[in-house]
Amino acid sequence: MAEQRQIRFGILGCATVARNLARTISLAPNATISAVGSRTAEKAAAFVAETECPATAKVYGSYDAVLDDPDVDAVYIPLPTGLHVRWAVLAAQKKKHVLLEKPVALNVAELDQILAACEASGVQFMDATAWMHHPRTAKMKEFLSDPLRFGQLKSMHSMLSYMFSADALKNDIRVKPDLDGLGALGDAGWYCIRAILWANDYELPESVTALRDPEVNEAGVILSCGASMKWKDGRVATFYCSFLTNMASDICAYGTAGKLRVHDFIIPFPGQPAPFYTLESFRPIEHGVEAELPQDVLLVREFCNLAGSGGAPEKKWAVISRKTQVVVDAVNASIHNGFETIEVVY
Amino acid sequence: MAEQRQIRFGILGCATVARNLARTISLAPNATISAVGSRTAEKAAAFVAETECPATAKVYGSYDAVLDDPDVDAVYIPLPTGLHVRWAVLAAQKKKHVLLEKPVALNVAELDQILAACEASGVQFMDATAWMHHPRTAKMKEFLSDPLRFGQLKSMHSMLSYMFSADALKNDIRVKPDLDGLGALGDAGWYCIRAILWANDYELPESVTALRDPEVNEAGVILSCGASMKWKDGRVATFYCSFLTNMASDICAYGTAGKLRVHDFIIPFPGQPAPFYTLESFRPIEHGVEAELPQDVLLVREFCNLAGSGGAPEKKWAVISRKTQVVVDAVNASIHNGFETIEVVY
Repeated sequence: MAEQRQIRFGILGCATVARNLARTISLAPNATISAVGSRTAEKAAAFVAETECPATAKVYGSYDAVLDDPDVDAVYIPLPTGLHVRWAVLAAQKKKHVLLEKPVALNVAELDQILAACEASGVQFMDATAWMHHPRTAKMKEFLSDPLRFGQLKSMHSMLSYMFSADALKNDIRVKPDLDGLGALGDAGWYCIRAILWANDYELPESVTALRDPEVNEAGVILSCGASMKWKDGRVATFYCSFLTNMASDICAYGTAGKLRVHDFIIPFPGQPAPFYTLESFRPIEHGVEAELPQDVLLVREFCNLAGSGGAPEKKWAVISRKTQVVVDAVNASIHNGFETIEVVY
Repeated sequence: MAEQRQIRFGILGCATVARNLARTISLAPNATISAVGSRTAEKAAAFVAETECPATAKVYGSYDAVLDDPDVDAVYIPLPTGLHVRWAVLAAQKKKHVLLEKPVALNVAELDQILAACEASGVQFMDATAWMHHPRTAKMKEFLSDPLRFGQLKSMHSMLSYMFSADALKNDIRVKPDLDGLGALGDAGWYCIRAILWANDYELPESVTALRDPEVNEAGVILSCGASMKWKDGRVATFYCSFLTNMASDICAYGTAGKLRVHDFIIPFPGQPAPFYTLESFRPIEHGVEAELPQDVLLVREFCNLAGSGGAPEKKWAVISRKTQVVVDAVNASIHNGFETIEVVY
């Protein structure tokens, strides 16, 4: 195997999710962490000391300093969603490739600023939706695309939930209106919507209708919600996402010839291989797919392959992110407009 | 075991579903078929000859004659839904216990006539929803009722579909507007709605909203549809039912502490035991439940136990049927009123 170009990451912010990614980047064959920025240099130094960051990583007391570092090729941005547009745009303007936590933005108008900046600078954009990169996902897609085994997709349901502790319901950034205004819709709902688009070959639904009366906290941030969506040919999908329900991570997709189920879609249960289940005609079958590396490492590897290719950026990830955000926005609009049906416009 | 009183059945009509039930009744320890009525005596005689009916069963060229036979204690009515109200009311008036195919009626007003007639005559009413009688159903309910293993129900999805052949899409009574005007909603949807009510301890939702744009045939009969429903405390449920999708028979129920899945809920896959799956905290568990008799035989046995008890009829089955019909009606009303949210009134 030819030696791969190492993409040197700068990390903006020291959130818990960034700690996980520090380990992930250390496992990727073509990535390294060269700088960490936090609001104080002490925090950044503690982060480097406590995680799998190389000891050589530079520490900065600001995000700007990371973006000004010529030894940084790409940034990973795990900041609260409300800060994405500012820092992702700046990063792109400084010619850094952008790996952005989901939800990528508070709305598609913000995302468009980010994507325009990436486009103008010719840098790679990708969101950090790791399950997309597990080989199981490709294997499931192969099944869904098989006219004999699955046929035509008719309906699907996706569900993602985790039970927030009392402490998280008070203090997690994902329930703070000024930090992550989309709440469970932007977090867990993002995955459900992505799953639905993925199964539908990224064809946007014609319209979206939110389920009535999502649960919200006292600040109005969504703690659980759902929606239905429909396509012109009669296809439908529903999803539900929640911070108030025990762990669930399900996709059920129903076709004219078969059906697909997976019950740990965003992160496979521990152990190999990662399972999924089909019903082909009337026969239930269990499948298992091995992954050579954890899915988040595969995500980083893919991002770095693209960032380091030397060619034009791969646009498909921007399109997939934007479509996901468009549907998130439509669900949000329905919730805030009396659960009206919202036409989906790309 | 004390010898059980044999309930003597009259069967009204010789539909395919009646053929299955002839076998079922022959397997039930407390049931026998004493008469079969069809539109012609020849058809009734052929039915007796070709099924597990005892050779002693009387054959009649009319349904009225069955109802007038004093050797008939109970009737099984597998006629098209549009004929239920007429024949179930007449049967009750003639003091016959009523085992009625689902959907029980075209709407709750019709069902109320049937239930009033049963009440006036003091006869037992039950609908033929066999999965309710499989011991797996009780075992799953035990799990859903466990505050530690499942907690509080937060959301659920139910899906039932089977792929109609081109011939069935033309000729099956379930797609004929004059015979079974509710189409897939009354047939497959009945089961989904029953499953949702069952999991919610038969607490009716506050409101129901149909998914937009169900698929219909040229006569306007529903071939696939779905709906969402909600309860005051934030619980939600969605379902989808179809004659245009390969076999699926799923319940996924999500609680604060655990989750339940079953993928053959209306009829277990062949073989014992019948499976269901839970996630308790973070641990996936497969369960299996043996049944001493097929579930439809258990249904007939239970019906005959109640019919033969000599006491007052057991009302719970009428209430469960009526609640199911009320939700079917609400979904139908939403479909026919621009997918508006319909308040559910018992």
